[in-house]
Amino acid sequence: MSIKELLQEKTNVDEVTLRGWVRTFRSNRFIALNDGSTLANLQVVVDFEHTPEETLKRITTGAAIEVKGKVVESQGKGQSIEVQATEITILGDCNPDEYPIQPKKHSLEFLREQAHLRVRTNAFGAIMRVRSTLAYAVHKYFQDNGFFYVNTPIITGSDAEGAGEMFRVTTLDPKNPPLTETGEVDYKKDFFGRETNLTVSGQLEGETFAMSLGKIYTFGPTFRAENSNTSRHLAEFWMIEPEMAFYDLIDNMNLAEDFIKYVLKYTLEVRREDIEFLNQRFLEEEKTKPQTERSEMSLIEKLEFVIHNDFKRVSYTEAVEILKNCNHNKKKKFQYLIDEWGVDLQSEHERYLVEKHFGCPVILYDYPAKIKAFYMRLNEDGKTVRAMDILFPGIGEIVGGSQREERYDVLKQKIEDLGMDEQTLWWYLELRKFGTAVHSGFGLGFERLVLFTTGMTNIRDVIPYPRTPQSAEF
Amino acid sequence: MSIKELLQEKTNVDEVTLRGWVRTFRSNRFIALNDGSTLANLQVVVDFEHTPEETLKRITTGAAIEVKGKVVESQGKGQSIEVQATEITILGDCNPDEYPIQPKKHSLEFLREQAHLRVRTNAFGAIMRVRSTLAYAVHKYFQDNGFFYVNTPIITGSDAEGAGEMFRVTTLDPKNPPLTETGEVDYKKDFFGRETNLTVSGQLEGETFAMSLGKIYTFGPTFRAENSNTSRHLAEFWMIEPEMAFYDLIDNMNLAEDFIKYVLKYTLEVRREDIEFLNQRFLEEEKTKPQTERSEMSLIEKLEFVIHNDFKRVSYTEAVEILKNCNHNKKKKFQYLIDEWGVDLQSEHERYLVEKHFGCPVILYDYPAKIKAFYMRLNEDGKTVRAMDILFPGIGEIVGGSQREERYDVLKQKIEDLGMDEQTLWWYLELRKFGTAVHSGFGLGFERLVLFTTGMTNIRDVIPYPRTPQSAEF
Repeated sequence: MSIKELLQEKTNVDEVTLRGWVRTFRSNRFIALNDGSTLANLQVVVDFEHTPEETLKRITTGAAIEVKGKVVESQGKGQSIEVQATEITILGDCNPDEYPIQPKKHSLEFLREQAHLRVRTNAFGAIMRVRSTLAYAVHKYFQDNGFFYVNTPIITGSDAEGAGEMFRVTTLDPKNPPLTETGEVDYKKDFFGRETNLTVSGQLEGETFAMSLGKIYTFGPTFRAENSNTSRHLAEFWMIEPEMAFYDLIDNMNLAEDFIKYVLKYTLEVRREDIEFLNQRFLEEEKTKPQTERSEMSLIEKLEFVIHNDFKRVSYTEAVEILKNCNHNKKKKFQYLIDEWGVDLQSEHERYLVEKHFGCPVILYDYPAKIKAFYMRLNEDGKTVRAMDILFPGIGEIVGGSQREERYDVLKQKIEDLGMDEQTLWWYLELRKFGTAVHSGFGLGFERLVLFTTGMTNIRDVIPYPRTPQSAEF
Repeated sequence: MSIKELLQEKTNVDEVTLRGWVRTFRSNRFIALNDGSTLANLQVVVDFEHTPEETLKRITTGAAIEVKGKVVESQGKGQSIEVQATEITILGDCNPDEYPIQPKKHSLEFLREQAHLRVRTNAFGAIMRVRSTLAYAVHKYFQDNGFFYVNTPIITGSDAEGAGEMFRVTTLDPKNPPLTETGEVDYKKDFFGRETNLTVSGQLEGETFAMSLGKIYTFGPTFRAENSNTSRHLAEFWMIEPEMAFYDLIDNMNLAEDFIKYVLKYTLEVRREDIEFLNQRFLEEEKTKPQTERSEMSLIEKLEFVIHNDFKRVSYTEAVEILKNCNHNKKKKFQYLIDEWGVDLQSEHERYLVEKHFGCPVILYDYPAKIKAFYMRLNEDGKTVRAMDILFPGIGEIVGGSQREERYDVLKQKIEDLGMDEQTLWWYLELRKFGTAVHSGFGLGFERLVLFTTGMTNIRDVIPYPRTPQSAEF
């Protein structure tokens, strides 16, 4: 039986056998036992007079033990029940002089170096349970709403999306690769008979399935070989990408908003205890900041706010007007000043809009075609595309999506104009040749959603083993 | 509204607007419309006298159309309702002279070359919907049973598991890689500052989470750079890997059996219609075989059989006795004859046990240590390990698992004996140093489960875009 089950069933249980790890042991009497099933520790009361000295010594932080005992109402504060141990077995010792995880607060930097152990702390246990529940909520939402899960390929021969730098996947001899007659690397001799990379997005393949199954979603790892060491970027991250036939941009926005609200609501309900712990952690972190930089809302208030309020929908053109005329721009407080229509928005602009101007999640749409990807539906004005980004407070862009260009001629022309390789996109173009229709989709970076839900600030702390430049330990 | 929703709600709906693709159009009158939400086509009755000739011409197989009309009881066989069209709009044409997917039976080989379109056929639509539901059942089972989903890393610096050949992941110049002073490739200059590969298994990292969260599972892509062009192998496939603290080998077997039965039962219920279609397909395929090679059971009977019968549990030692003494072996009908204890079992032996001898799924356990991986728990006999493989009729190995070696000294010795790199495994060894305990886990190749559930025979036909030697199209 797990501690979670015991705490749920409570006094219906009389005798129990529990296994877990010692979090603390005080006064030779009280063990805080945790088995990972829940944030809560169970208090185990040791009959130290009848327990061998040798055993008592081995009950140390981190040790794995088995406890047999009686479930009784607790005398102490903060718990309804406790277990009076009748038998304690040490399963695995934990030498306190060597164990890196002590019952005190460790820095996040230190814990990143102990990624195989950090999940044994309250905070990381909570984060990883929340991550798991969020992932499940993603599947549940889509499956309940008639979407089919599609596993698009990870190794890809097309670098067509151009979303970012790619990792090469190869089995060629790294030192002496086979060369062609002209002295180039001969990828015909590589495993797949061609140059292959790790995917930056499953969208294009996702579209092929949407154009037959109707509504699909992907949820898998994606990769960017970008040398950006920021608190918001990973070289390997998980992405959710729904694609829907017959959806226009408005349908797409409605779906994205409904989806985000659902997964937050579900997770807040199911993982209330963990999120309350993270809420406390968040408030304590905020206290260390100068008054002016503190969040006006607690973590839970932020989640509730997003769940219960409409996202503000603003066109790129409106957004640029707001930014151009705001005091922040006039006083030259932006690093990149906004002076004309057509510029790409930087993180500082997005955050200004979300955090200062609107004070709520914002959906920006109808961006200039020039700053967006080739597959986005051109508007009738000939200069904007039916793109939408969802911007979140503290996170910035959390969703990027668009209505897709469904017209064969327009798409083909765009591919040519950009000098892209039409050959590798033959199958993508064929979707527009055989029964094309309006369709849309978006991508949501899963770790950014976990960041928002847990109140953490560094993306390295919401994925089990982060992959970043110069770092692939474990 | 989707066709699936319409068929469920039936006569509660009066007027509808539907969008989908034309499967067939006969007698200028009856459109079989499919939108991917379900296997079933909806019959749309065209009022051809009041529909422009120009529109009628464009209603061809594969075309995307929008239909407005009235829902009425159907006169025809095989459907309860149909839609009498009042308005038909062509959304996207489909030139019958160019469209590769015709309303006839195509070969699986041909369809693999049209992987972006093959999901528009009945069979592949059914397969991919079944795949999606199976995946959801996996998540549902684990989440309902207190497991946490863990995303273990895809790019890994440790090739420790030794489960197979690996793909290198790199951003180094392929033609002129930087070299060290001794002339080796200088991986310090690579993206991650070390040599990195695509993971062959998330197990080792999964164990780190099990030893704190208790029960976890992974479900993600894994990779093998093996040059094996068989109907059971992919270079990129999805794997499910649960890991449980405090589980011994028997607990592990119980879990695996219960898990498989659950996901099959769930999928058979939810995707009954698709599986019935695949059942028919299976029976037709069987008819093309010689009488002696035909399956005794239909696809649905096989699924029901697995759901309702215990898996047979047999030790490796017992299995070798059976094989050694069977007529098949004595008559030298095996390619590899079984003559002594200790040999690895080949696919032919596994299939003999499952299909001929026992006639049911078999769990083989307690294998010779020498033919199994380093991390498996050594038995007291000093020569076998607590491994288990689950073998399925027609599939062979579908699950491979074990109780993990939890003893620090034994594991360290094993790593040394095998000449493995202890340095890259420091964190894995530390699990045995800090609060170690009995724990177990297994891996299940998801595509093999999809193969079994759909009755297909080539693994390339149950994943959207298969990756195999010399093939990474799309």
